[in-house]
Amino acid sequence: MPESPGLPLVLTMGDACGIGPEILAKVFLGARPEARGAFVLGDLAVMRRAAALCGEGLLPVAQIEGPADALCCPPGCVPVLPAAGLPPDLADAPMGKVDARAGAAAAACIRQAADMALAGKVAAIVTAPIHKEALAAAGVAFPGHTEMLQAWSGGAPVRMMLANDELRTVLVTIHVSLRRAIDLVTFDAVLDTLRIAHRAAAAFSLATPRIAVAGLNPHAGEGGLFGDEESRIIAPAIAAARADGIDALGPLAPDTVFMRARHTAAHPGEFDLVVAMTHDHALIPIKYLGIADGVNVTLGLPFVRTSPDHGTAFDIAGRGTADPASLLAAMRMARKTSVNR
Amino acid sequence: MPESPGLPLVLTMGDACGIGPEILAKVFLGARPEARGAFVLGDLAVMRRAAALCGEGLLPVAQIEGPADALCCPPGCVPVLPAAGLPPDLADAPMGKVDARAGAAAAACIRQAADMALAGKVAAIVTAPIHKEALAAAGVAFPGHTEMLQAWSGGAPVRMMLANDELRTVLVTIHVSLRRAIDLVTFDAVLDTLRIAHRAAAAFSLATPRIAVAGLNPHAGEGGLFGDEESRIIAPAIAAARADGIDALGPLAPDTVFMRARHTAAHPGEFDLVVAMTHDHALIPIKYLGIADGVNVTLGLPFVRTSPDHGTAFDIAGRGTADPASLLAAMRMARKTSVNR
Repeated sequence: MPESPGLPLVLTMGDACGIGPEILAKVFLGARPEARGAFVLGDLAVMRRAAALCGEGLLPVAQIEGPADALCCPPGCVPVLPAAGLPPDLADAPMGKVDARAGAAAAACIRQAADMALAGKVAAIVTAPIHKEALAAAGVAFPGHTEMLQAWSGGAPVRMMLANDELRTVLVTIHVSLRRAIDLVTFDAVLDTLRIAHRAAAAFSLATPRIAVAGLNPHAGEGGLFGDEESRIIAPAIAAARADGIDALGPLAPDTVFMRARHTAAHPGEFDLVVAMTHDHALIPIKYLGIADGVNVTLGLPFVRTSPDHGTAFDIAGRGTADPASLLAAMRMARKTSVNR
Repeated sequence: MPESPGLPLVLTMGDACGIGPEILAKVFLGARPEARGAFVLGDLAVMRRAAALCGEGLLPVAQIEGPADALCCPPGCVPVLPAAGLPPDLADAPMGKVDARAGAAAAACIRQAADMALAGKVAAIVTAPIHKEALAAAGVAFPGHTEMLQAWSGGAPVRMMLANDELRTVLVTIHVSLRRAIDLVTFDAVLDTLRIAHRAAAAFSLATPRIAVAGLNPHAGEGGLFGDEESRIIAPAIAAARADGIDALGPLAPDTVFMRARHTAAHPGEFDLVVAMTHDHALIPIKYLGIADGVNVTLGLPFVRTSPDHGTAFDIAGRGTADPASLLAAMRMARKTSVNR
């Protein structure tokens, strides 16, 4: 027998109309090690609909009464803790469509999972994908998981990290327009990111992480010819971080820093992680070789939260073809970092 | 004997203080097929200094009198056509430093190469790297090759394409600050890019290229939540291009479109090329797996122009360690596309 998984792992159901419930159900097929001690916080009827999609014979859904029940749930079934206050007709929401009921339910599950984590009832939270338009349709005033979890756990600064086997990136700005992102690249935002990334690296067994800082502009501003954010904002924030003992280097040209940090057996990376100014500077290289192993980690929260590095995939929702690989990678990352914490 | 290379290929010397002269000299080591019919337009003394770096015995520099002489130059030497009006003490400029003489000389070589191409004396131009600060120090009013060549060949709209064995991207904006790039993403700029990319694809033997258009904002604006450039500018330009018979699709999320277009034997790409709004959206994925095979192609000029996908590398200039692989790829691409033209 593998050793005890310790505290249970809560998996939030995500948008009921996307692929979240389906990939969650697939995690519990075939007694995978990742599934031990994990449970879904969500809606029983939605998870039954998802389990029926898996197409490999009977995958029963087992209602549990509390997080601790997940530790003694037999393998090969899907343990579901019903979240409180979900719309009663949630399983009627059509697959692959923006639905306010699904947005409201997704937010409720995340809120209740955060409360469990803050109360020490779960080791970590792994979140299935949500749809930002469904959240907006439900009147949820947050664009994504990161912002919600930050607000519901005290409001300290948090940052999104994207990681796969080759690359780790931490983002200064995330879910805003590119124009707004530029305005949000401030001295404090960059310095906070460097501090959060440096502290969080302990969870990845990196005592003194080598942090590369990507610039905002082409060629990191080319000595001021293509923008001055590097000299005016980013370089001073790096200097302040270095004065605090953080091994930060930059600003470096965005188009080559990810290549330099990429770590494989044949190509040792020059850096342990890259701080990026914009969402797509960071996510383009993380996703370029495929999204199966990408994991999203929220840094700076009082608990561990990871998620798969893909969205609700409305175009294939309900077909039974969605791949749980990234969710499984997120569950492995959640276990690993919550142990190192 | 391989077949005749037809017209000669002109190689501009680039910044004399960077790795350009060295990688140009290395092309002529060992009688590579790429070197046949090619010559350097530049400075004899600078090229002699570079040839001496190559460290594999004698690599003679042969002065030629005109482009056609390159076709009968013996293999194993570096044919150099002296450019007119270069600073007499150019070879005294220190390696690895910004020097106004090197900037002025680089621009002069490019100008003269463009004139040769317009006069039909060369098949194509391959440009070695220049340094934008050296250009600026010399009072050259262009930030890069693309802008110079456009101005000196009639002013029609041109676009930068970056290509390697897996991916082709064409850029709407290039060497400007990110803030200015957003302002330059207009209906006309996107539509011109689509038209130029569609026409140029014939040179790559693609009759009806499948063109993906990346958005500007995270998640391509997420339905308007993260910016409206997609709905206000990019989608209408795509619609206009489609009305012209161009197979353009989008706007698609920047963080996954390059992964979807990536083409390998095991992973057939969904698109033949990706139109990107910003420099780094396009260059990050092109460079992620290494820069050795990346080639820069200027589309929309009345002649073919390619260049290696790297800069002057001042940090290693003068050491003899620079790799000519990307320059060789650019020379192969120039030959191939000038034949298909």
